[in-house]
Amino acid sequence: MNLQEAIQKLYTLQSRMAAYSHAAGLISYDGQTTAPKGTAANRAHTLAILSEDMYRLSTGEETVALLEYLDSCKEQLQEKERRMVYLLLKDIRYMQKIPMEEYVAYDTLLVEAEDVWHKAKPANDFASFEPYLEKIFDTVRRFAGYAAPEKDPYDYWLNEFEPGISKASCDAFFSALRERIVPLLKKVQVAKPVDDRCLYGSFPDAAQEALSYDLMKLMGLDLDHVGLSTTEHPFTTSLGSHLDERITTHYQEDNVASSLYSVVHEGGHALYDTGSDDSLAYTVLDGGVSMGIHESQSRFYENLIGRSLSFIRQIMPLLKKHFPEHFASVSAEEFWRAVNKAEPSLIRTEADELTYCLHIMVRYELEKRVMAGELAVHDLPAAWNALYKEYLGIDVPDDTRGVLQDSHWSGGAIGYFPSYALGSAYGAQFLKKMKESVDVDACLERGDFAPINAWNRTHIWQYGSLYEPGKLLAQVLEEPFDPQVFADYLEEKYTRIYDLPRE
Amino acid sequence: MNLQEAIQKLYTLQSRMAAYSHAAGLISYDGQTTAPKGTAANRAHTLAILSEDMYRLSTGEETVALLEYLDSCKEQLQEKERRMVYLLLKDIRYMQKIPMEEYVAYDTLLVEAEDVWHKAKPANDFASFEPYLEKIFDTVRRFAGYAAPEKDPYDYWLNEFEPGISKASCDAFFSALRERIVPLLKKVQVAKPVDDRCLYGSFPDAAQEALSYDLMKLMGLDLDHVGLSTTEHPFTTSLGSHLDERITTHYQEDNVASSLYSVVHEGGHALYDTGSDDSLAYTVLDGGVSMGIHESQSRFYENLIGRSLSFIRQIMPLLKKHFPEHFASVSAEEFWRAVNKAEPSLIRTEADELTYCLHIMVRYELEKRVMAGELAVHDLPAAWNALYKEYLGIDVPDDTRGVLQDSHWSGGAIGYFPSYALGSAYGAQFLKKMKESVDVDACLERGDFAPINAWNRTHIWQYGSLYEPGKLLAQVLEEPFDPQVFADYLEEKYTRIYDLPRE
Repeated sequence: MNLQEAIQKLYTLQSRMAAYSHAAGLISYDGQTTAPKGTAANRAHTLAILSEDMYRLSTGEETVALLEYLDSCKEQLQEKERRMVYLLLKDIRYMQKIPMEEYVAYDTLLVEAEDVWHKAKPANDFASFEPYLEKIFDTVRRFAGYAAPEKDPYDYWLNEFEPGISKASCDAFFSALRERIVPLLKKVQVAKPVDDRCLYGSFPDAAQEALSYDLMKLMGLDLDHVGLSTTEHPFTTSLGSHLDERITTHYQEDNVASSLYSVVHEGGHALYDTGSDDSLAYTVLDGGVSMGIHESQSRFYENLIGRSLSFIRQIMPLLKKHFPEHFASVSAEEFWRAVNKAEPSLIRTEADELTYCLHIMVRYELEKRVMAGELAVHDLPAAWNALYKEYLGIDVPDDTRGVLQDSHWSGGAIGYFPSYALGSAYGAQFLKKMKESVDVDACLERGDFAPINAWNRTHIWQYGSLYEPGKLLAQVLEEPFDPQVFADYLEEKYTRIYDLPRE
Repeated sequence: MNLQEAIQKLYTLQSRMAAYSHAAGLISYDGQTTAPKGTAANRAHTLAILSEDMYRLSTGEETVALLEYLDSCKEQLQEKERRMVYLLLKDIRYMQKIPMEEYVAYDTLLVEAEDVWHKAKPANDFASFEPYLEKIFDTVRRFAGYAAPEKDPYDYWLNEFEPGISKASCDAFFSALRERIVPLLKKVQVAKPVDDRCLYGSFPDAAQEALSYDLMKLMGLDLDHVGLSTTEHPFTTSLGSHLDERITTHYQEDNVASSLYSVVHEGGHALYDTGSDDSLAYTVLDGGVSMGIHESQSRFYENLIGRSLSFIRQIMPLLKKHFPEHFASVSAEEFWRAVNKAEPSLIRTEADELTYCLHIMVRYELEKRVMAGELAVHDLPAAWNALYKEYLGIDVPDDTRGVLQDSHWSGGAIGYFPSYALGSAYGAQFLKKMKESVDVDACLERGDFAPINAWNRTHIWQYGSLYEPGKLLAQVLEEPFDPQVFADYLEEKYTRIYDLPRE
């Protein structure tokens, strides 16, 4: 094999992988958006076969030989190709360790689990979901054992979602945050409450949908390449490449802020993905590098931008356009305070910026315990409720609004949650850095996302998955990651919103 | 290889083919329903790869050896497996004759052509579509030459869509119909015109959608396995198996009958597909056998059932429920006459039962001429307009409502159209036969589709593609196919609607 041919084959391989991923991704997306509800078994049938093909393609002899060869001459490769070979071999080394039947069975399990969860959540029926969740935890624990027998299984998965992190670093990160958030929350709880009645009323789906599209345009999303649908739980997915991106939202008839911030959050993911350099399409470098960096972008747009007073001033005319009666006498300041109201609550995705990390800590603690075998899946609802009482001081009335609320576990994403909190902290530090060269508030006041998006594109998006998160962070920040920057931001913001005494 | 193992492999092969067909089908469906409009190239990329895989799977050495072996011992096979082997070998023998690059290139071409057509139609821009349509005609002509060099290319494709038919049989069929329809239409045109104003008004999409679901339920469609979406041109597709069926419609804000009859028409296709015996899922016998038989079912529900007075009596309460003001003082008889108004018109899918076949004859004539090289694609718009003048006596104002109106050609379906007219005629004869044992009008008067659907299921649906259309027809009808039955039905119906003098 000569090097030029091998590089050509490397691209062909990734192109085929992208096609399978497009097909499988679309089948899942269809299951969550459009498919009639009795069709899960049909999807499971097809996904099992595609997954088997994907496994053969990615771990087949020819592929392994190609990648080993390229790895052996990696000094002659360009940075991009070297990284492709590294990532593909990493996956192969993982997949080589997972018996094929188990790999295929797991994919089938996830399709079924998702379907069961979709029914269990509204029915407040954890019992029906429990056996599936048990199998999922068993499988991820077993797969971690196959992949890295020397490693703690939860450490393994944390590091998969966010390379570089571990239980030890998460414990340290969360405790640093807790030390600042808990006292701040206490001050907020005794301050004059924020009146958020302006968020509630009657907001027909059709008008909320029209608002969604206006928000997407305002954020600078390219609607020719980014679609919007509705699902139980909002998410973002790339189909085959960053050239076909889908975000979803969920309209709550009585609450205008819920979908609004879902759209801005998922829109942030979509900006990151679609911001990959076009030359990365149909390669493993296409799209965001890790969950933590992904969440840094989604939460950047949702909170740092989306819940700022300057942004709210921009969107007030849109709100007045789509809901003229409701917003006739609501001011930007009033809406800004309302969407930043901080109080312990039940639903993570509806939580304010301040208490959000406490929701994450509940999930992190529970995953850690189940993965360590210290907690049975059967006991998750009770443990969930106990931790909500302990961390947030509230009683969970049912599993619909408790342990069943998130889609992550039904999708096998164990170890994902901490990346939300890390993302918030990364985002705050990115914003601080961005402000050295971009007048962010001035941009927002005139509704001009271009300089903000350009900064993110130049520093983060264009690279796709070219750099490890740690390297990317160092490159962008030019200083070490420091959770105190996020804590400072929260303190400053909530002091202003709640007129807290400055020390 | 032993026979039992080979049969097992036969099912595995079909199961894999169904998975690819699910993936490719869903990608196309997504392109027509949900995908952002700039994503066609991304779909083309993936479909090219899946299509290459499908080609390898269906025509690979191992597959060919398996099927040749099974064919060599076909006397020992059961009827079902014998038919599977026949159909699979038929496709292989076809695909073996098509060079792989051309096969893949054609799939890519169709994806692009569909995208271009979607833009060209509303823009009245035949010129942009012309080069694609030219390539499509060239390709189907060339492929027919590869597949059956001894055959006339158009005969080849007619026979592909409806095994057993040819230019000669179509010429005879259409001329038999023309002899009865043309004089009947003349009588209708001088009779007292039907007042169809009750079909027009303002019908919001949301209410039309709610009506669609009510109609689907009334027809006995299983909504757990049949989905509804909207597209430019309504269609029906099975994704992977008859267990996941999708129909689409198109809401016209000012015309309630348009989508209503699209839903009933596509619902008929969906009943046929989903009526396959469950044991046929993931095999080539799953779903309807031919375009003609398929149209016999869709047009059975749309016209023979859906435009009967008994059916209209059933749906009047639904119309009054969804459009209470509009239908407050409209009677069933009035609506029945309105939806059966016969007059020459521009749009095939909106045409009445009587003139419908004339629309088909235009397309049949044009395809025949282009395929024979007697007419250039460039001259299609003019020829289209001339034939509309000749057959229907009307002037075509633009290509949007002319040569660009149908999606078929952009999808490569050359030779499909005659099956619509054949289907109408088959359906009329099925109804005559059904009435020997089922009191169809009494069923409809009480809104009970079960006996009607049961008859169709027993005689037609359950078999999927087990029998050739000719054999199925003979089995169901117990007499030869006779277009005069359809002509008699039309004469009886329009005599009643227009109070024509009986001879």
